[in-house]
Amino acid sequence: MTVQDIANDLVALCKAGEFDTAGEKYWADEVVSIEAMPGDMARVEGKDAARAKGEWWAGAHEVHSSTVEGPYVNGDQFVVRFTMDLTQKASGQRMTMDEVGLYTVRDGKIVEERFFYA
Amino acid sequence: MTVQDIANDLVALCKAGEFDTAGEKYWADEVVSIEAMPGDMARVEGKDAARAKGEWWAGAHEVHSSTVEGPYVNGDQFVVRFTMDLTQKASGQRMTMDEVGLYTVRDGKIVEERFFYA
Repeated sequence: MTVQDIANDLVALCKAGEFDTAGEKYWADEVVSIEAMPGDMARVEGKDAARAKGEWWAGAHEVHSSTVEGPYVNGDQFVVRFTMDLTQKASGQRMTMDEVGLYTVRDGKIVEERFFYA
Repeated sequence: MTVQDIANDLVALCKAGEFDTAGEKYWADEVVSIEAMPGDMARVEGKDAARAKGEWWAGAHEVHSSTVEGPYVNGDQFVVRFTMDLTQKASGQRMTMDEVGLYTVRDGKIVEERFFYA
């Protein structure tokens, strides 16, 4: 699969709400996942840690609706935009999350995902 | 200025159509500008070459309307989305361009800009 193929499939899975499936299918074992925030979630390494972060996130938020735009491709990287209407369960606060993910592919797997916030 | 400040100002300038001003103000002398296409424009180095590329682009296209979204920030990088309704002057073809730029900042200047296409 080309980077474009992987990017297209990841976007299709995310549009279908299959975020977990996208990760399982394309994360490299040594994937590094980087958030633009301080704390434990700023940088996690390895597929298990990325999966755990996703599970934590899914448990901590209720997603009312979401849009997924892209992919935008250049070489071995691609960008996807995610917009979500969600409620943080702990605070009860409803908000719109607007972020982009920058994905780097090597040997058909995502070796880095880096998230940027509006 | 923080990376967030620079990103905010660049977006404000681009929303006002001041793309040239944004480049002059924030490109480092050694800026590298990377497009997701083959050919002479794939990678240009230096502020003079980046300016020349911008002038070529502006001369080759008529922009009917544009939207600029972002910035999305993480550390020393930020992402901006550009959507443009334009006509390629050479072909007369009217099209929608949807792309994102990934900017890397060092010492208050943009040292790399990398464009991704939908």
